[in-house]
Amino acid sequence: MSAMTRIDYSDGETPLIGHLVRPTGTPRAAVAVFPTFMNITEGVANKARALADAGYTAFVADFYGPESPHDFDSANSAMMRLRADPHAMRTRLRATLTKLGELEPGVPQVAIGFCLGGLAVLELARDGADLELVASFHGLLQTPLPAAQPIKPRILVCHGDVDFLVPRSHVKAFWEEMDAVQANWHFHSYARVDHGFTNPLTPVGEPNPAYNASADRQSWAALMGLLDEVLA
Amino acid sequence: MSAMTRIDYSDGETPLIGHLVRPTGTPRAAVAVFPTFMNITEGVANKARALADAGYTAFVADFYGPESPHDFDSANSAMMRLRADPHAMRTRLRATLTKLGELEPGVPQVAIGFCLGGLAVLELARDGADLELVASFHGLLQTPLPAAQPIKPRILVCHGDVDFLVPRSHVKAFWEEMDAVQANWHFHSYARVDHGFTNPLTPVGEPNPAYNASADRQSWAALMGLLDEVLA
Repeated sequence: MSAMTRIDYSDGETPLIGHLVRPTGTPRAAVAVFPTFMNITEGVANKARALADAGYTAFVADFYGPESPHDFDSANSAMMRLRADPHAMRTRLRATLTKLGELEPGVPQVAIGFCLGGLAVLELARDGADLELVASFHGLLQTPLPAAQPIKPRILVCHGDVDFLVPRSHVKAFWEEMDAVQANWHFHSYARVDHGFTNPLTPVGEPNPAYNASADRQSWAALMGLLDEVLA
Repeated sequence: MSAMTRIDYSDGETPLIGHLVRPTGTPRAAVAVFPTFMNITEGVANKARALADAGYTAFVADFYGPESPHDFDSANSAMMRLRADPHAMRTRLRATLTKLGELEPGVPQVAIGFCLGGLAVLELARDGADLELVASFHGLLQTPLPAAQPIKPRILVCHGDVDFLVPRSHVKAFWEEMDAVQANWHFHSYARVDHGFTNPLTPVGEPNPAYNASADRQSWAALMGLLDEVLA
């Protein structure tokens, strides 16, 4: 398994700390990995390592910089501050793609994300990012800045049907928003699966520790399959 | 590639003609393949052969027997006659599983279907069939006999979001029907993909020849992934 390296980067004056893991050979693509609202955790780091094992460079983004949270409440507050200014948030997210482009110049880019990271990759798609694919896992679907231009990347959304943060009304609104700009989306919905289904390490006692081995396995396979297709 | 063999069977007094293809080794499972309303076509036969290549026995069902249609209009009429009596239709569908059980005794069973065949496999699930998995590809989701008992098989539905036969209202009603009996479904919806996305051989000039290579590829991969999981 490849080692993960700390990478310092920044969004304007805000210092950020990313985590990079490279495959053994030439990377098939460079994947920006946007973590949950908790910022990087062992669960997300493991996904980045799995990408490297599959031949991809993976770069785990830092949402918050020096404000990086250490528990549920501070993470929630940090997320609220980040989301309060949607344009500033997009600038923050683009900084990760820029840094990844410096680290892997000329390599096609992809972005995946979990929870807040799922929201992040959809925001990048709406923002016109030059990505081959974005994949959201139990991500939030709503946006204060609906897509108003063609979206380049293919879109994969892997969604727990009973996600307590994403009711079916959000799903329907997302489809309508994406259809209005002719986006090319695949939407996978899993019955009786809640928010956070990809993380086997969710601490007991936190809200909705909803790991679902089948949804985790099948959604990851869907990502691998679409990556093969968009990079063929 | 394995050879396909004609298999005579029956539903009561109605003679039926199935088509069987076996893998080279011991089958991982026995898969009933329910074709489109056109009954067996080269497109569906190719899916059966792909299953055999992947290690599965595949048995293509006959919906109609002596009334088997030869063109769009006669197929449509035959389908209407079949669907006119939902209980008789279920008896017809069960005959295929029974015959498959005789051909591959003791082997776990799965059912997949396309178009009318997608409707068929969901009808079997609703009817209490002892299957490990059912998978519907651009199948019809409505039923005159909604599920009223627990459903054993895992359910995979691969759906073109703009299927002209399956509007979003049917999707929502299906989810609600399945949730009422706590079914374990994965629902994949593909943007701007129409009915019939799995068949590259759809004759030009027929209604909605909507082959979509990406949806075909990804939905088949989803089937392979879930088969691995339910048979592990």
